[in-house]
Amino acid sequence: MKRYNIAVVGATGMVGNKFLEVLTEKQLPVDNYYLFASAKSAGKVINFMGKDHTVIELTDENVAKLEGKCDIALFSAGGATSKQYAPVFVKHGILVIDNSAQWRMDPDVPLVVPEVNPQDIDWNHGIIANPNCSTIQAMLPLKALNDAFGIKRVVYSTYQAVSGAGVAGYNDLLEGLKAFVNGTEYQTKKFPYQIANNCLPHIDIFMENGYTKEEMKMIWETKKILGDQSIKVTATTVRVPVLNSHSESINIEFKKPATKEGIIAALKTQEHIIIMDDPANNVYPMPILSTGHDEVFVGRIRMDDTVDSGCNLWVCADNIRKGAASNAVQIAEYMINNNKI
Amino acid sequence: MKRYNIAVVGATGMVGNKFLEVLTEKQLPVDNYYLFASAKSAGKVINFMGKDHTVIELTDENVAKLEGKCDIALFSAGGATSKQYAPVFVKHGILVIDNSAQWRMDPDVPLVVPEVNPQDIDWNHGIIANPNCSTIQAMLPLKALNDAFGIKRVVYSTYQAVSGAGVAGYNDLLEGLKAFVNGTEYQTKKFPYQIANNCLPHIDIFMENGYTKEEMKMIWETKKILGDQSIKVTATTVRVPVLNSHSESINIEFKKPATKEGIIAALKTQEHIIIMDDPANNVYPMPILSTGHDEVFVGRIRMDDTVDSGCNLWVCADNIRKGAASNAVQIAEYMINNNKI
Repeated sequence: MKRYNIAVVGATGMVGNKFLEVLTEKQLPVDNYYLFASAKSAGKVINFMGKDHTVIELTDENVAKLEGKCDIALFSAGGATSKQYAPVFVKHGILVIDNSAQWRMDPDVPLVVPEVNPQDIDWNHGIIANPNCSTIQAMLPLKALNDAFGIKRVVYSTYQAVSGAGVAGYNDLLEGLKAFVNGTEYQTKKFPYQIANNCLPHIDIFMENGYTKEEMKMIWETKKILGDQSIKVTATTVRVPVLNSHSESINIEFKKPATKEGIIAALKTQEHIIIMDDPANNVYPMPILSTGHDEVFVGRIRMDDTVDSGCNLWVCADNIRKGAASNAVQIAEYMINNNKI
Repeated sequence: MKRYNIAVVGATGMVGNKFLEVLTEKQLPVDNYYLFASAKSAGKVINFMGKDHTVIELTDENVAKLEGKCDIALFSAGGATSKQYAPVFVKHGILVIDNSAQWRMDPDVPLVVPEVNPQDIDWNHGIIANPNCSTIQAMLPLKALNDAFGIKRVVYSTYQAVSGAGVAGYNDLLEGLKAFVNGTEYQTKKFPYQIANNCLPHIDIFMENGYTKEEMKMIWETKKILGDQSIKVTATTVRVPVLNSHSESINIEFKKPATKEGIIAALKTQEHIIIMDDPANNVYPMPILSTGHDEVFVGRIRMDDTVDSGCNLWVCADNIRKGAASNAVQIAEYMINNNKI
């Protein structure tokens, strides 16, 4: 079997750390890993898969050295770094799987959830984009339901964990909770207001139309991944005081008639969905259940009789795993297993 | 000016306490207050408006003693107590304003938000119901928008605070957060699962159709209060780890064309709405802002182009004040000021 070499760019960040964890679990046929980070973290030694790895500074020269020695680079170092360095890796023959928003809406870049649109991998030109965390988890149920009933319109309301805002966001909640419990003050570093004991209807920047960029990502990316620009999507995205795993209330209007049984049957055809829908026994998805897993948890499945055909869903997933690191590694795994690289 | 006497039933509970706080602020023309609670709290002395009040046990005999000496009873002691005792108060000539769900959907009982449908007070038969907390806060913006544009359909997703689950729910979060910060275990008493660091898509009991009773309350009560059974309403209600103030993501489809300016103009006509909608300056409603206020905070106003005419709103309000105690006291105040009693 062919062996590979993989670079991880942004190896010391929240998602970068998770890349290493997921790669350890997956045990892909990889000989060498190259861990990249900014000058600040370069030189740091990370023990990974039983080997000490010295973190390499992300520079043009250091990337050039990988030519012929590296197949795939997993990026999670922010949009600016992806914009600058993804083309450098591509130039040296290394396929980039990028977790930032930088390339997602580029018509030359496939935006991929491996369970949903693996076929889009085939037309890549060196970069494959990993969708936004809040989009990824919705795609598994929406793909299954779109295939079965045709989706006309989606209304998303999200309940997003602070881990989606990186280490600084994570610490804002942890430190904020400590201060809250101890009756002291804590000044948030990442969020504009306290997140402990609060909800922030503000994720990413505000756009001219009043929507946040996070909301627009869900709108744009849903259509691109499902490959249907006619699907109508609107969204309200909200940060809640939860450390990890995003939750979503999804209202869906179908083109064709649907029943609850039909919806469950459709969801069961979709790999990596765990249906938790037994209200009588208090069985439903929750962030504390989905954390640590790569599956998408779907429950509270209810027919919506306010439209001709529709339903409400409640969907939870680990936003750092399935919403980021695991999805990117799954793309690499898919390409390796299917000889796409 | 006529003077009144008011009874408070459930005076020692979460909302009961808030009744006393709001009554102190309002300084209605009241001579005597009678504080009722269950046998467990009876005999307890509560200093209220500078006077010591001994809590009276809620029994038929003790209610009978109020005949001719009491005008209004504010109830917040749970549905079972309301079911048993509201008719007893009515029999003795005392108007009941009830905060439980017991009478809300009774066709003989008006369900009132004073800023929205005060005219319904007139056809009461001794009991006036206070709507569910999550419904009340939505009614102020929805009434204004229904008058202006005609509402066709509403999709609610709620972010509800633990204070809505009473003292036990409040303590489940407080104690849960302490345990979370200290790395210890806490067994919740009110909620089926931990609420600290979690979201529970489960408020009130599950109904046969898969919706929770909380969701059905929002659906039923919205139509009754707006006086239009043709309005289509669906809901997903979720408990979030916030101590106080409910937040709501509301997607609305209108019958008539609307613009953002028109929506803001309509909201401005509605008393007790505070519009916080200046994203460029990070101005939007949050639970930490609405707590302690009786107004409903409305922001994140965005046109929704996935329907012919529609919008998304983010609405926060203090669920114990406007969502419960203040709304009930406002009903009493309205009746007193307008000689309806």
